[in-house]
Amino acid sequence: MSGTRRLVLAARPVGVPDAACFAVEAAAMREPQPGEVAVAVSHVSIDPAMRGWMIDAPSYMPPVGTGETMRAYGAGQVIASESPHFAEGTWVTGLLGAQDHAVLPADKLRAVPTGVALADALGVVGTTGLTAFFGFFDIGRPIAGDTVVVTGAGGAVGSVVVQLARIAGCRTVAIVDSPAKTGWLEDLGADMVIDQSDADWRRPARAAMAGGIDILFDGVGGEVLDRLLWSINERARVVLCGAISQYNKDRASGPGSYVAAITKRARMEGFLLQDYRDRFDMAEARLAQWVAQGVLCQRVTAYEGLEAVPQAIAAMFSGANMGKTLVDLRASNVLLQEATG
Amino acid sequence: MSGTRRLVLAARPVGVPDAACFAVEAAAMREPQPGEVAVAVSHVSIDPAMRGWMIDAPSYMPPVGTGETMRAYGAGQVIASESPHFAEGTWVTGLLGAQDHAVLPADKLRAVPTGVALADALGVVGTTGLTAFFGFFDIGRPIAGDTVVVTGAGGAVGSVVVQLARIAGCRTVAIVDSPAKTGWLEDLGADMVIDQSDADWRRPARAAMAGGIDILFDGVGGEVLDRLLWSINERARVVLCGAISQYNKDRASGPGSYVAAITKRARMEGFLLQDYRDRFDMAEARLAQWVAQGVLCQRVTAYEGLEAVPQAIAAMFSGANMGKTLVDLRASNVLLQEATG
Repeated sequence: MSGTRRLVLAARPVGVPDAACFAVEAAAMREPQPGEVAVAVSHVSIDPAMRGWMIDAPSYMPPVGTGETMRAYGAGQVIASESPHFAEGTWVTGLLGAQDHAVLPADKLRAVPTGVALADALGVVGTTGLTAFFGFFDIGRPIAGDTVVVTGAGGAVGSVVVQLARIAGCRTVAIVDSPAKTGWLEDLGADMVIDQSDADWRRPARAAMAGGIDILFDGVGGEVLDRLLWSINERARVVLCGAISQYNKDRASGPGSYVAAITKRARMEGFLLQDYRDRFDMAEARLAQWVAQGVLCQRVTAYEGLEAVPQAIAAMFSGANMGKTLVDLRASNVLLQEATG
Repeated sequence: MSGTRRLVLAARPVGVPDAACFAVEAAAMREPQPGEVAVAVSHVSIDPAMRGWMIDAPSYMPPVGTGETMRAYGAGQVIASESPHFAEGTWVTGLLGAQDHAVLPADKLRAVPTGVALADALGVVGTTGLTAFFGFFDIGRPIAGDTVVVTGAGGAVGSVVVQLARIAGCRTVAIVDSPAKTGWLEDLGADMVIDQSDADWRRPARAAMAGGIDILFDGVGGEVLDRLLWSINERARVVLCGAISQYNKDRASGPGSYVAAITKRARMEGFLLQDYRDRFDMAEARLAQWVAQGVLCQRVTAYEGLEAVPQAIAAMFSGANMGKTLVDLRASNVLLQEATG
């Protein structure tokens, strides 16, 4: 049973988290107590929210302490169970942490639905897809024919929102941060793709949004949000999903164009996935069905091994990754190899 | 019938509108056509929205053209009517403009309710009160016990919101821009009054908002909004009523703290009074009743004569005025003297 490891938060980040923020160390294993389950972790999900968990400020979850295992969503296989809800061998997802071996209450885990790929269960049918689903449908309240603008459209959540908007009969404008992502977004069915790294991006943006924006799904913030808000229509919905351009800054900057929301009677609203827990099953079933039907898909940028987590995080913030970022532990996690034998 | 005058927009403002933006000139009078009414104007309402009407940019109303009568709400008496809805002698309110004599369609006017003072009909029971009412109740959705923070609480709308919040069983924190206004807001029933001109205002603010903000009714924007947003509670409602601190700037600045709305699942929403027209009667009746009961009141800062309009506008933006700003034309409007004479 030796050889299990964990990635701890070694130091709080200044700017983009780098290798010095983390350390891989040998980990003790404890047995699951009644109601708990032990999981051998196969995949660590890399998400922008991790940046917020790394700082010492009160938020919707307590900060990760220095020296503690880095918090992360992940997938894995149950290797010991003290809960009637999960048998050994079951594949599950949850906040497993960046480590080989996780022990946590059964009610914090979800089983990977039958027929759903592991990467999809963490992504397009998991927290990523659920975030896109509730943000778009519940906060955005789409009406077929709406013009939906998605920032960070080449990211995990954004690329799902583009597809949900298409499925919901909306016109979609995808904003990406590099020319390498435009072709992919076109393939996903975006009616228009705009590359914000082009110095001239505002010209095609103005043309694409000549009829105004009904839903602005924003995961980016900063200058792009500031420019786009000037183009919102009356009663527009601005889904505040994230602000990845601001997370690594000392001091976030806000869009001066928020004043447009006054006269446009627009709504800017944040949301957290955990509030929708009672509707996860419904949303998961629909996402899984769309994946099975081939109308919804994801792209994965995968890294290998716990040591790659810092690199995967930095690459996500730099925009180098396409779609969902995952770190695959299947080759390096001894427990998992024993379990799957 | 000679001697009627109007205030025209002579030049578009840069910064705070000053006297050079306006000119008083002799005005021609036209007879009302079928469906129209002629009104001798008694009061011109001075509102922050006027700044937006003065610039040449598309908005919810067309810009006032240079050389055209300055748009303004006002009160007056019907002196000629081609509408069955308003008899001569009726006192009315509406977008009468900054002029002695207004001719407009009857359906653009509202009769001053019986027993309501003219200044109240333009203020606490008029557009000011209705703006406060729908912003607070419809966008803010108060729950008794909520902590309601009102910026610009010494202004026309803000001072009404403070009182509505008290009536609705909420705890109210009034933010004012000068020590001269604190006593008045305490008299209105604010549980706490904070003077933002005090360099140290954030200390009492933090104490007053230790339990967090449930509703932030904002007419000010800028630094105050930026500071306050960090203190919003989960599911907070930020009523975007105005941004008076930004209207005279070349480039509005936005609150970096809007990112707090993401994790707090907060809603920031704008609104326009004109969208609530079908509920004006209901709201007006309630406001009038509260005024009659003595639980709602307004304070007026009054100026005299059309020539005083520029000064009244500048004083409103500088924070020199308390409560509702009005310009009284009763002594200078020959038509009105003839009518009431």
